[in-house]
Amino acid sequence: MKKAPMTLAEKLLAEKLGVSKVEPGELVEVPVDLTLANDITGPLAIKVFESTCINRVFDPEKIALVMDHFTPNKDIKSAEQVRICREFAKKYGIKHYYEGGVCGIEHALLPELGLIAPGDIVIGADSHTCTYGALSAFATGVGSTDLAGAWITGKTWFKVPESIKFVYYGKLKPWVTGKDLILYTIGDIGVDGALYKAMEFTGEAIKGLTMAERLSMSNMAIEAGGKVGLMEADDKTLKFLKGRLKKEPLILKADKKAKYSEIREYDCSKIDLVVALPHLPSNVKFVKDLSQKIYIDQVVIGSCTNGRYEDLEMASKILKGKKINPNVRCIIIPATPEIYKQALRKGLLEIFLEAGAIISPPTCGPCLGGHMGILAKGEKAVATTNRNFVGRMGHPESEVYLAGPAVAAASAILGYIGTPEELGL
Amino acid sequence: MKKAPMTLAEKLLAEKLGVSKVEPGELVEVPVDLTLANDITGPLAIKVFESTCINRVFDPEKIALVMDHFTPNKDIKSAEQVRICREFAKKYGIKHYYEGGVCGIEHALLPELGLIAPGDIVIGADSHTCTYGALSAFATGVGSTDLAGAWITGKTWFKVPESIKFVYYGKLKPWVTGKDLILYTIGDIGVDGALYKAMEFTGEAIKGLTMAERLSMSNMAIEAGGKVGLMEADDKTLKFLKGRLKKEPLILKADKKAKYSEIREYDCSKIDLVVALPHLPSNVKFVKDLSQKIYIDQVVIGSCTNGRYEDLEMASKILKGKKINPNVRCIIIPATPEIYKQALRKGLLEIFLEAGAIISPPTCGPCLGGHMGILAKGEKAVATTNRNFVGRMGHPESEVYLAGPAVAAASAILGYIGTPEELGL
Repeated sequence: MKKAPMTLAEKLLAEKLGVSKVEPGELVEVPVDLTLANDITGPLAIKVFESTCINRVFDPEKIALVMDHFTPNKDIKSAEQVRICREFAKKYGIKHYYEGGVCGIEHALLPELGLIAPGDIVIGADSHTCTYGALSAFATGVGSTDLAGAWITGKTWFKVPESIKFVYYGKLKPWVTGKDLILYTIGDIGVDGALYKAMEFTGEAIKGLTMAERLSMSNMAIEAGGKVGLMEADDKTLKFLKGRLKKEPLILKADKKAKYSEIREYDCSKIDLVVALPHLPSNVKFVKDLSQKIYIDQVVIGSCTNGRYEDLEMASKILKGKKINPNVRCIIIPATPEIYKQALRKGLLEIFLEAGAIISPPTCGPCLGGHMGILAKGEKAVATTNRNFVGRMGHPESEVYLAGPAVAAASAILGYIGTPEELGL
Repeated sequence: MKKAPMTLAEKLLAEKLGVSKVEPGELVEVPVDLTLANDITGPLAIKVFESTCINRVFDPEKIALVMDHFTPNKDIKSAEQVRICREFAKKYGIKHYYEGGVCGIEHALLPELGLIAPGDIVIGADSHTCTYGALSAFATGVGSTDLAGAWITGKTWFKVPESIKFVYYGKLKPWVTGKDLILYTIGDIGVDGALYKAMEFTGEAIKGLTMAERLSMSNMAIEAGGKVGLMEADDKTLKFLKGRLKKEPLILKADKKAKYSEIREYDCSKIDLVVALPHLPSNVKFVKDLSQKIYIDQVVIGSCTNGRYEDLEMASKILKGKKINPNVRCIIIPATPEIYKQALRKGLLEIFLEAGAIISPPTCGPCLGGHMGILAKGEKAVATTNRNFVGRMGHPESEVYLAGPAVAAASAILGYIGTPEELGL
């Protein structure tokens, strides 16, 4: 029997279920390949888990606990949250518990460690779990209660999402990255433009992106309301996974005749460097179109969106031999210890220090207003992070401007939101 | 007229006053060469200053504001504290305002920048201002109100302290540093053993110490209640100051016949590596004499006491090629951007990262339970910091063990409080 045509999201779910077809709107219960919690959501999930009479987890090798949000512990409360997770991990023999010097930002760390494979179903008590869509995993954020349920049953349920196909073509302009593409896309469709839909990122331009850029795009699917942000695995994906993955990847592709609720096409050659103004990721403008200079107090280069080596490398090309504007604090956060080490060996850290940047150990800190760079009243920051809601990085009257690493680094030098071109680069 | 014999503390005050003699117990008002506040105490002093009708400071070049305690800003409150100081600095043209990538831990930064000269009178709204005694400056901590007064008048008042002379002789054992000597001394005389007295550190062993070790010793004078912790400037002092200092140093020496309230002698060849057990810096034991293994959760190598290059270098000799114990978080904090850069260039940072340590940007954070490594209930830390009071680094039921960099680094590997010898070093 010929299989019905399916989108990538549908294929991933159908394959895991061993069925020939799933339909949007259908409720499915699927086994999970990995479950994730962090130092904020872990204790909540543990509390739910411990409120049951169950005293075993479904598979201690399929639970990841990553202590990345308020670490290095910013206060007693955050220290206690880590302690709760650590004790849980010890009690149940959780294999993938990370804290301290071996820990990084979850969505950078888990792919780096080879814990995410194409074809996987991954749920995480963190909204940016959708990052792994770039590795062709059906990965999405869930609440801590749902996560605790999966710790017990090894399964979770979804309503099969409709899919929107995004086709990117054309050559990217200098300094433009996947971060600009996804911000531009969110600017186009709005923060609920893909509400509970699978975003399928396709096209020649996507194939041209680095894995870091792809992960950055999928990471922000949730900022358009997307359930997942999927890409087909290709040679680049496999190259990234080589030596990391402990199992065979399952390479699935959307069928040509698959049914999408919508197809949107973007000519990347027309997309300039962008910035998302406060207070929504969809409030996107080309930097060149800003009508006046927006002076800033802080720049953050890091996070699960843009804290990977390639992001730091791009920033280093702009910061090299220059000085951070004296009115700006520039905080650079390599997302994992491996990225940190690579940045050290390749001379990036020296460039950052010479420029007068602050180098932070891996942490989500400033992105969520957690720590390591909180804004005071009236302060403005350019950040390579993923959200710029009111008060996201500190005081309710502070402002966050989202951008890619090039705009962030250039702005750190300029003292206002600008591009590398303004520095003659 | 022949001058009356004076201690070093008396000489420093008399010289500044232009008198031939000051007597312990006498009240004197002296001009100050530098005043210091940080992100905690600065806003308090500013509040006092602004409550007066004065709208000028005595000398904008003699005020230092160092944003080092809760930075990179850990929360909105700390961000606001920095903002208050920044705006004050702008309003009054304060020359030595430091935040962001050019900022370091105050008591490491100011000497490094050449802002402290032998013969200076320095007050700081921070108890460890006594650090500068190692540079032969009469330097001591004051309250924020006294500091605000000095911002207006350029003067402060002291009761001339009695002096205790500490004479250190004999060759130091391997790995033993100035930190061990000062902890041993505090263990000997108690936390009020030098209450409102000038501690004068002398002897051949002091001459043999590095400047980092000397600063570390003077730093902890306050932990014995000392008003100041003074050393005579020598060739090493002048070498350290060369290229930094913007004025001629005033080299003063205690008179041989000066009157001390007490003279204490220590044979350094008998001093082993020490640790100060909870919850007092005077609760000192030789590590070799610990009756049982004390397992630890965290190691902090940094602070105004031991975050200098020489401290990191000693730690690197122990950490090189080894791995941090998996039960331990090891946080290493270079005290200033210059130290950070030097550690990078000399390969120390790579050693630390390879060992699995966390490298933090310069901050006082964990020492005072501020941020960047706060302890949970029941956790134990070895720290190269200066205080181990109840709850100092976090939860009231956590414990801090004070030590030098050698014991801290060795303990990070061992997982319990131990010495380099236990690692075959």
